[in-house]
Amino acid sequence: MYHHIKQLMYSVHIGIPDPRFGNMLLEQFGGANGELAAAMQYAIQGLNCDDPERKDLLMDIGTEELSHLEVVGTLARMHLKPMKSDRHAAHEDPLIAIAGGGGVALQNSMGNPWTADYLKITGELDVDLRSNIAAEARAKIVYERLINFTDDPGTIDALQFLMSREITHMKAFTAALESMGKPAFSIGCIPPTPVLVNQYFNDSTGVGDRGEPDARGPWNEGGEWEMVTAPALQAMESYKAGTRTPTENGQSNGSPETVVTAKQGKSKKK
Amino acid sequence: MYHHIKQLMYSVHIGIPDPRFGNMLLEQFGGANGELAAAMQYAIQGLNCDDPERKDLLMDIGTEELSHLEVVGTLARMHLKPMKSDRHAAHEDPLIAIAGGGGVALQNSMGNPWTADYLKITGELDVDLRSNIAAEARAKIVYERLINFTDDPGTIDALQFLMSREITHMKAFTAALESMGKPAFSIGCIPPTPVLVNQYFNDSTGVGDRGEPDARGPWNEGGEWEMVTAPALQAMESYKAGTRTPTENGQSNGSPETVVTAKQGKSKKK
Amino acid sequence: MYHHIKQLMYSVHIGIPDPRFGNMLLEQFGGANGELAAAMQYAIQGLNCDDPERKDLLMDIGTEELSHLEVVGTLARMHLKPMKSDRHAAHEDPLIAIAGGGGVALQNSMGNPWTADYLKITGELDVDLRSNIAAEARAKIVYERLINFTDDPGTIDALQFLMSREITHMKAFTAALESMGKPAFSIGCIPPTPVLVNQYFNDSTGVGDRGEPDARGPWNEGGEWEMVTAPALQAMESYKAGTRTPTENGQSNGSPETVVTAKQGKSKKK
Amino acid sequence: MYHHIKQLMYSVHIGIPDPRFGNMLLEQFGGANGELAAAMQYAIQGLNCDDPERKDLLMDIGTEELSHLEVVGTLARMHLKPMKSDRHAAHEDPLIAIAGGGGVALQNSMGNPWTADYLKITGELDVDLRSNIAAEARAKIVYERLINFTDDPGTIDALQFLMSREITHMKAFTAALESMGKPAFSIGCIPPTPVLVNQYFNDSTGVGDRGEPDARGPWNEGGEWEMVTAPALQAMESYKAGTRTPTENGQSNGSPETVVTAKQGKSKKK
Amino acid sequence: MYHHIKQLMYSVHIGIPDPRFGNMLLEQFGGANGELAAAMQYAIQGLNCDDPERKDLLMDIGTEELSHLEVVGTLARMHLKPMKSDRHAAHEDPLIAIAGGGGVALQNSMGNPWTADYLKITGELDVDLRSNIAAEARAKIVYERLINFTDDPGTIDALQFLMSREITHMKAFTAALESMGKPAFSIGCIPPTPVLVNQYFNDSTGVGDRGEPDARGPWNEGGEWEMVTAPALQAMESYKAGTRTPTENGQSNGSPETVVTAKQGKSKKK
Amino acid sequence: MYHHIKQLMYSVHIGIPDPRFGNMLLEQFGGANGELAAAMQYAIQGLNCDDPERKDLLMDIGTEELSHLEVVGTLARMHLKPMKSDRHAAHEDPLIAIAGGGGVALQNSMGNPWTADYLKITGELDVDLRSNIAAEARAKIVYERLINFTDDPGTIDALQFLMSREITHMKAFTAALESMGKPAFSIGCIPPTPVLVNQYFNDSTGVGDRGEPDARGPWNEGGEWEMVTAPALQAMESYKAGTRTPTENGQSNGSPETVVTAKQGKSKKK
Repeated sequence: MYHHIKQLMYSVHIGIPDPRFGNMLLEQFGGANGELAAAMQYAIQGLNCDDPERKDLLMDIGTEELSHLEVVGTLARMHLKPMKSDRHAAHEDPLIAIAGGGGVALQNSMGNPWTADYLKITGELDVDLRSNIAAEARAKIVYERLINFTDDPGTIDALQFLMSREITHMKAFTAALESMGKPAFSIGCIPPTPVLVNQYFNDSTGVGDRGEPDARGPWNEGGEWEMVTAPALQAMESYKAGTRTPTENGQSNGSPETVVTAKQGKSKKK
Repeated sequence: MYHHIKQLMYSVHIGIPDPRFGNMLLEQFGGANGELAAAMQYAIQGLNCDDPERKDLLMDIGTEELSHLEVVGTLARMHLKPMKSDRHAAHEDPLIAIAGGGGVALQNSMGNPWTADYLKITGELDVDLRSNIAAEARAKIVYERLINFTDDPGTIDALQFLMSREITHMKAFTAALESMGKPAFSIGCIPPTPVLVNQYFNDSTGVGDRGEPDARGPWNEGGEWEMVTAPALQAMESYKAGTRTPTENGQSNGSPETVVTAKQGKSKKK
Repeated sequence: MYHHIKQLMYSVHIGIPDPRFGNMLLEQFGGANGELAAAMQYAIQGLNCDDPERKDLLMDIGTEELSHLEVVGTLARMHLKPMKSDRHAAHEDPLIAIAGGGGVALQNSMGNPWTADYLKITGELDVDLRSNIAAEARAKIVYERLINFTDDPGTIDALQFLMSREITHMKAFTAALESMGKPAFSIGCIPPTPVLVNQYFNDSTGVGDRGEPDARGPWNEGGEWEMVTAPALQAMESYKAGTRTPTENGQSNGSPETVVTAKQGKSKKK
Repeated sequence: MYHHIKQLMYSVHIGIPDPRFGNMLLEQFGGANGELAAAMQYAIQGLNCDDPERKDLLMDIGTEELSHLEVVGTLARMHLKPMKSDRHAAHEDPLIAIAGGGGVALQNSMGNPWTADYLKITGELDVDLRSNIAAEARAKIVYERLINFTDDPGTIDALQFLMSREITHMKAFTAALESMGKPAFSIGCIPPTPVLVNQYFNDSTGVGDRGEPDARGPWNEGGEWEMVTAPALQAMESYKAGTRTPTENGQSNGSPETVVTAKQGKSKKK
Repeated sequence: MYHHIKQLMYSVHIGIPDPRFGNMLLEQFGGANGELAAAMQYAIQGLNCDDPERKDLLMDIGTEELSHLEVVGTLARMHLKPMKSDRHAAHEDPLIAIAGGGGVALQNSMGNPWTADYLKITGELDVDLRSNIAAEARAKIVYERLINFTDDPGTIDALQFLMSREITHMKAFTAALESMGKPAFSIGCIPPTPVLVNQYFNDSTGVGDRGEPDARGPWNEGGEWEMVTAPALQAMESYKAGTRTPTENGQSNGSPETVVTAKQGKSKKK
Repeated sequence: MYHHIKQLMYSVHIGIPDPRFGNMLLEQFGGANGELAAAMQYAIQGLNCDDPERKDLLMDIGTEELSHLEVVGTLARMHLKPMKSDRHAAHEDPLIAIAGGGGVALQNSMGNPWTADYLKITGELDVDLRSNIAAEARAKIVYERLINFTDDPGTIDALQFLMSREITHMKAFTAALESMGKPAFSIGCIPPTPVLVNQYFNDSTGVGDRGEPDARGPWNEGGEWEMVTAPALQAMESYKAGTRTPTENGQSNGSPETVVTAKQGKSKKK
């Protein structure tokens, strides 16, 4: 059950309204990484969650994001208000000006209506927490960019509040994920295929426009990594060499064969 | 530049086509966590990336996902093919049957057209890598659920291949993020507000339907955490106690005041 | 500022979960006339509202709808839960089953993601109240249809609660509109053109498939109504009779002419 | 069956084309409250309607809106035409300029494609009429705002025509609704729960930013209204006082309990 | 200006309503290749068209499609009507059943709302006519598939009427395009680059799953065609051979170099 | 299987970045007629195609379009890059600036996310080829317009390359269609109704705003064409003349009657 108190979580004060910046602020009101997206992602994950402790976490933060939605909406409203009557201002966001009379609406800076396609909800708690960590990181960088695009002290002050809270949430979700004690890279119940999972497919080769060769790094060398030449190139060469027998896809023979490339790829481990 | 080799990255063989399962498979073809979403997210992040080494990583995996798109599309196509002529089958996905003649299309299991709203691309490399780690975790769990919904050995075999590769990619993205050497919870350049960032707002209180009290855990106690009673309840009480002076939002006074609750919240640190 | 209490506004209890009905319930969770649509429409109208009294009304009801969202979401979650593991159930909503693991998501019964396009927000208070009255009427009829599609007493009980509240809100919005004291059919500030506004254009003529002639009723006869033969037919006849001079559209002559039909239409007032 | 006469319902003449205003005009061509939305909403309600008299009304007005679509489209086309070759003009709506060659398209002022999500069609005649009354009120205010954003006499003249007709339609739909003779607030067949329906939940409390207390008005006092303290606060207090027993949601016990707040809420009737 | 006559362009009669087939019929009501898409595509192309003769053609057919929309909508309505009260029927399209009360709505067979994204309108007449020829071909095949999915004689009869008209329109659009007298493959004003335009890039190589080699046909051999080995493979080999100098993309040197492959590709003309 | 080579298919060099033009370029990156739309339309048609030779063609061109996506994306990226830090530039596309940090995203010039609704895929090869011919014509004209909106030589050079290739593809698809040897206007298997198919319905009549009478041309006269007076007007007149008996739609009588107008329409063949 929800209750609303007629006070903002953070008071907002602005200098001269800047409709162009008000339009930009809509990114965090009705945009893909904005406050409604955060509020809904966490609240609905919480509704579906069977772990009572982390469900509480999801509801705590989901509710806070609703209060943030109100703060950023109030801030945007102040900047957009001149659009109702000022033609020049109206041009910054004609949809807000004409359809909305200068009021905020659940859309982003280019007028796209908010959509639940922005949400990442799987009903698998540790997966959802990873989605939330990433979501908070995105929201943080968007607030930072907004701060960089305004000089109004009051506006910056409110955005700094909201931006800081995203890091708070990122920390909380990270702690909640770690406290679940799942082994690294263990998602769900079915384990990945042992050898295959450590093969790195080098599917983009050649030299880049700035002369860079193929990159090596901890993401494809060391540890258990096995470097595999791109399957497509291997397939091409095995075809040229006459070592490949074409097979009928769709045939029902019950004995699927693994592609040569993935199984026999010569590793070039350093 | 791309090249295509007329061979699948993983051969697919199925037994009796199952149109209902073919419809489900569309989740990984044109769905929110499917292969086109992965391919596009990484390839476009790569296109925007200024770090040549991790750009190579993004292009390697982005290209592999295109090959996966072809594999899962071929698999779905086999299961959906009867829809062209079989009325009973057609009912499992009338859009595929009637508009598509039994061929696959870039939509999910409920017919929603694929949309770029599924993608998370910020142009901030470490943030994008976090989004990718979460994306791979989601894709893995979706493949696992698909495996659980079929008994066809050939289908399971192909799905196991695709599922395993998601873990490979999750490992690679994690290594790439860690190798950037950024401090924990450091996103972008502007630091969060020091005290505020460690305050946990208890915005959902009371006893749950199963009798659970408010949860404590590493996400709100220990370390630097400071527990703050929900701002809304504090505001309500300060209003009742007569200690709050309403302020005019939108007023331009240059000296925004922080909300009482966030600043003066009594911490309940353990 | 929002606060959440870990108790539902209305307790929900169900008998045997019915995944097919759970899918139908999504209409009121993430559908066009559902609880999120109501919550967002009123809360954002409230955020934009300059009338403090009716703003309070909008926030009261907008907040209640968030609590309803939680109730209907919990109810749907109970019915959908079997989808996670039961293949037969999964078929009722494969998107919920596979992408969501049997949890609710912000979509309707056909899997369409919730979109802000469902909302009607103009920033003109009396217009918004009219939109809200209509929205509550729609929500009421949808709940009634859901009640008619289930036999489960607990489910019916919760739906009856939610349905009743829609009438409550419809009454409140109607009283709020009437108390504004605006003259009937007075919207905004610019008055309609005097004669034109009372002309009823008979644009659909002939005899219907069941033999019905053109209908007359208080919507086109009596009072100030003037019946005008369809402009298109008049134009056709004036053209045949040679009484019409074609004019160049797009011509800038500063003296636009009203169409003959609208000005000279022979009224057939009873 | 439809027929088209090659003459506009209202001749349009403009002075100097104003591409920026042309872009704004798209709101009424392909926008949420525009002429296609009106035409489709009424025509499809008409197609579904079993009341032959009001079906005729719906078809009359639905057809007129198609003629309006043509008028506003012609007007917008005149203003947008320079976009084909004038770079400066093209910037006002690059989608129209580049994809459309300066021609109109079914999108709004921010380029969103028209979507049937704008429509409100329930198949319940009196509910549909309420949606139509609200739709006409919205369309009227949008035309008024457009008139306020241009100085071109010919453009204003055409918009005045279109705006006036919205009031005509609003009158007609109101008369049609009233002539159905349904009791006030009676929607569908199932009556709301007697006591509950008159309870007003005060879900937003405290003092607003401008010092406003909770508002009372005909929407929550007088008549049958019973004022109920917000359920969430009551629940919180009953929990603190130890008078609440948590119950297991999802439990199938056949005897759902109504929440305390709704049943026992102390009214504060004036 | 439009006028509506209360008679269908083609009378529809059905036997026993088939809600499942009614759902399928929505493809041609509110689907991507359906009658509204056709009506809107042609009417708006017509509105934008400067060629008075072909504008008349576009308006003739655009208007006819509106009458088809009414026919197919009436047909679907008959089949869907049982959904209002029959639970089993309701399951075939819960959105129609619950939100629409068994009435048709502008959506396709999977519930997707009609969107203007379906339309292809460029404002370049010959290009638009090509889009229309393709659109009619698509609509024809969709009607044929629908005919194949029903046994009801009355339904088949109406669909045969509608299907036949698509061929009529395809013929008319083809004649209109040919009568414009434009040289083959001449689109717009800027000619393509002479040699490049006849180069066929073999970007998919290898042997297919059924043993097919690279295909040759009139689309890549004979006439002016020059066969070019896939640019990507050429680039890879030139890089391996050390004959490629990486260049800095984004550098502003005024003398862009064409890729080696496209310019110097060794043709393998037969 | 796909492979990526780290070299563009066409090197791009620009002078001074022009963010406004960069925004326009997004039409061909993530817009309705852009490179991703082309790549996906052909690749998925190819995946569904049973004709091995034309499947190869579809894969060749589908793959080339992926390389084009990379070229146009790189070009747009160069022009958009200043948006990350330059406020004035950011205003040209705030979504790219704030959400994307100046990187490209799969959206069009007005910020609409790419959607699979742009694609035309029917699984009927000759129909798909017609859709592709039209798609290439549209893409060509869009590139031409982009060329006309910039003066930067390097940008023009790259766009000329991409534009030329569209004509190449148009030629190839046309040759592939013609080589199938299908009779003209023969789509699918069910033939259209003989007389009806050659009737041209004159559904838009009267004299246009510039005085044009109804147009005659090879699309409605000569050959097998039979001109039919608009069915709606005929129906109206037969109703006035008392020669029409209204019939009950929805009645199941097994003997549907064709409308009088279509059967008995007096032809006005020249």
